[in-house]
Amino acid sequence: MRVIRTAAAQLGAIQRADSRQAVVARMIRLMDEAASQDADFIVYPELALTTFFPRWHHENRAEADHWFEREMPGEATRPLFERAKALNMAMSFGFAELTPEGRHFNTSILVDRAGAIVGTYRKVHLPGHVEFDPERTHQHLEKRYFEPGDLGFPVWRFLGGIFGMCICNDRRWPETYRVMGLQGVEMVVLGFNTPSVNSQKGEEKLGKRLFHHRLSVQSGAYQNATWVVAVAKAGDEDGHHLMGGTCIVDPDGEIVAEIEGEADAVVVHPCDLDATRFGKETIFDFKRHRRVEHYGRITAQVGTELPLAE
Amino acid sequence: MRVIRTAAAQLGAIQRADSRQAVVARMIRLMDEAASQDADFIVYPELALTTFFPRWHHENRAEADHWFEREMPGEATRPLFERAKALNMAMSFGFAELTPEGRHFNTSILVDRAGAIVGTYRKVHLPGHVEFDPERTHQHLEKRYFEPGDLGFPVWRFLGGIFGMCICNDRRWPETYRVMGLQGVEMVVLGFNTPSVNSQKGEEKLGKRLFHHRLSVQSGAYQNATWVVAVAKAGDEDGHHLMGGTCIVDPDGEIVAEIEGEADAVVVHPCDLDATRFGKETIFDFKRHRRVEHYGRITAQVGTELPLAE
Repeated sequence: MRVIRTAAAQLGAIQRADSRQAVVARMIRLMDEAASQDADFIVYPELALTTFFPRWHHENRAEADHWFEREMPGEATRPLFERAKALNMAMSFGFAELTPEGRHFNTSILVDRAGAIVGTYRKVHLPGHVEFDPERTHQHLEKRYFEPGDLGFPVWRFLGGIFGMCICNDRRWPETYRVMGLQGVEMVVLGFNTPSVNSQKGEEKLGKRLFHHRLSVQSGAYQNATWVVAVAKAGDEDGHHLMGGTCIVDPDGEIVAEIEGEADAVVVHPCDLDATRFGKETIFDFKRHRRVEHYGRITAQVGTELPLAE
Repeated sequence: MRVIRTAAAQLGAIQRADSRQAVVARMIRLMDEAASQDADFIVYPELALTTFFPRWHHENRAEADHWFEREMPGEATRPLFERAKALNMAMSFGFAELTPEGRHFNTSILVDRAGAIVGTYRKVHLPGHVEFDPERTHQHLEKRYFEPGDLGFPVWRFLGGIFGMCICNDRRWPETYRVMGLQGVEMVVLGFNTPSVNSQKGEEKLGKRLFHHRLSVQSGAYQNATWVVAVAKAGDEDGHHLMGGTCIVDPDGEIVAEIEGEADAVVVHPCDLDATRFGKETIFDFKRHRRVEHYGRITAQVGTELPLAE
């Protein structure tokens, strides 16, 4: 048994006017709650420090720079790192990263029990669009404010296991989990900010959106025999609704812990990393069963290539 | 609207002693039932003509050759082709194929309304093992009796759409659907013979097995915006139980038709191939969103490569 007591720490809505300091205070409250349940590791959502700002269009992109972090930890986030270290708790959370070279990424980090950043992931699958789209009921401008992650899907030896990260829309892409699965990943942690209604299909509402979310994380867990910890930022942000659906999925694809509702909340589950072994050694023993000679299109082409017309 | 009235034709158990003729008579009854519901296309399971013989160990592999078809149609299957042509119905079914060169495959075919075989698929992901395994509660000797398919995952223009096939265990591998998705597939048809209990984990029983089956076909459908038609051979074959779970999944990942129970049965659903468009043009518009520069491991390595030890 290699049990990691893992806390999924959902954040409720963060309004545009809320300060980093106010959000960090909420994150610390959730961390204290997780500590009271003996958590080893706490996972917060994507863009945990701010509202989901890609819904706001700025003609001048630099006007969005105030949503980005230039250092980590910075002044506002240092108390979070200090509390985690004092509690001997590892953590992961997401934020908008502005590098010294002026590059913008949707980023998450893995922080060890001593407060050191040991892993950085930059979101690969950016959804949405670059320019203002008048046909959408709301904007989703991730492709405007971020560039696609340049670090791939690495994994890290962490807490005695093998951990990986992805972010939000990445979870819908089976390539995400597979690349980490091929490195033996035992726990994938991810945060998300997912609007409750499809901006291009108004009849696709909360129930269907939660279904797609769960289907994606559960199949990714099962097909790679890995834990998946998926954490929402949820609720009504300045009139724009984000769904909940925070859950912990076991390596068999089953949801074993879940948060109801859309407020700040934490759920802790004892995740045994050895529970990944059976799947990795039998039905998903890649070495015995995968047939890469037939997978060529997956890396050789980006878009669809239709068969010749009849 | 491009509606294909699609019949999923589940077969109940086929005993070792049952003749091909008896099975074909059952398939024709299901076809007549499908015709009475105006079906355009009928899909039967994997190894539709015989019992699931890979559960039986033969020291001499050639002793299993009598389960294989040397021609298609052959004497026993010709009445099925004739009835399909008379009814103007397209079909797909699986069988064990022995080629003129003496090669063995787990095969399925796509047959047009005129009775011509227009597509052949040979199962790529063979589960199980090569030698008798005394630690299993039952044998699963697909790797003994078949070689892995050599045709990849092609698609065909068929019935005014783009169709692909896979077989049983292929459905658990996201690579299967993705390779076809990258060719614009609009309907994937597959048959399966899935034991109701995991031969290496006795506590994994019917409920969990059905869950994994549905999770796999629903995620494959959703993540590629394609219809998936999954058809079981089910029931008690000479004391060995196969699960049911025949279902038709829409391009949103929802099960829209299902067969309860484990007997011969047919369900018909009007599948609109144009329902694949929304997903293919938005969230799963591969051209806009896939990042193949980070997928390299999927084709570059077969098995797992662990990160360096700390």
